[in-house]
Amino acid sequence: MNEATARPDFMERALEEARKATERGEVPVGAVVVREGAVLAAEGNRTRELADPSAHAEMLAIRRAAALLGTDRLSDCDLYVTLEPCTMCAGVIAWARLRRLYYGAADPKGGAVESGVRFFSAPTCHHVPEIYDGIRASEAATLLKSFFVTRR
Amino acid sequence: MNEATARPDFMERALEEARKATERGEVPVGAVVVREGAVLAAEGNRTRELADPSAHAEMLAIRRAAALLGTDRLSDCDLYVTLEPCTMCAGVIAWARLRRLYYGAADPKGGAVESGVRFFSAPTCHHVPEIYDGIRASEAATLLKSFFVTRR
Repeated sequence: MNEATARPDFMERALEEARKATERGEVPVGAVVVREGAVLAAEGNRTRELADPSAHAEMLAIRRAAALLGTDRLSDCDLYVTLEPCTMCAGVIAWARLRRLYYGAADPKGGAVESGVRFFSAPTCHHVPEIYDGIRASEAATLLKSFFVTRR
Repeated sequence: MNEATARPDFMERALEEARKATERGEVPVGAVVVREGAVLAAEGNRTRELADPSAHAEMLAIRRAAALLGTDRLSDCDLYVTLEPCTMCAGVIAWARLRRLYYGAADPKGGAVESGVRFFSAPTCHHVPEIYDGIRASEAATLLKSFFVTRR
């Protein structure tokens, strides 16, 4: 197995966080920061609960991992997230200098990796992680679809 | 005076936060969230102090304002920031639904409003504030230049 191959258990943990977000009435996205083969931080979306527009799963997981390590640079960490990161989260991934980004479903309406501003291809992006997409994408997408259907 | 005209005292307060950031050894950027003619939150960059890659001035000010108001939507608030927001911060400005964005110096290397990904012109941007740029830009730029000169 290539060192960079996605670990199914880490994406499963991210999906679990997404499911828990649904139960809280939050958009079901989950994220995990991994370091040296272990989960350092696992978070789901909490924008409403925390009254914080930045409280996306990946933002919370990155913040927590950075706080635990006592540094704003996570160069030896990888991020697993169930949905393609938005523009804000692509930005914090670059600032945090994450090594690898593994994500599930694409987000044509709000994503910023393969969609929208494609931030990691922009000249103003100062750090580009290795990127692996489409990991358990249909499960992540189904969670989101179910969430938005029940809220309409 | 047009309602949207920049209030000099609010940008002065943002510059004051930028100066205080310099004293803490942080990149000198300051930001203020204003609501109904009063400062709701004023913050400077604290990425190192907080070991938080997301702790830019505007991100901290938006988070604090949202916490104070108990909502993730700041539709009746304006943001003053000394430097053109980066991609991450342009993202959170859109998520927070801020009404107006007033900024100082342009940031061709890392900005995302008139530079880089120009997020507010992207189809994946769900909210565009009114934007006013160049406010006390030379003072904001001088603070940044001095900071980086002394660190080389």
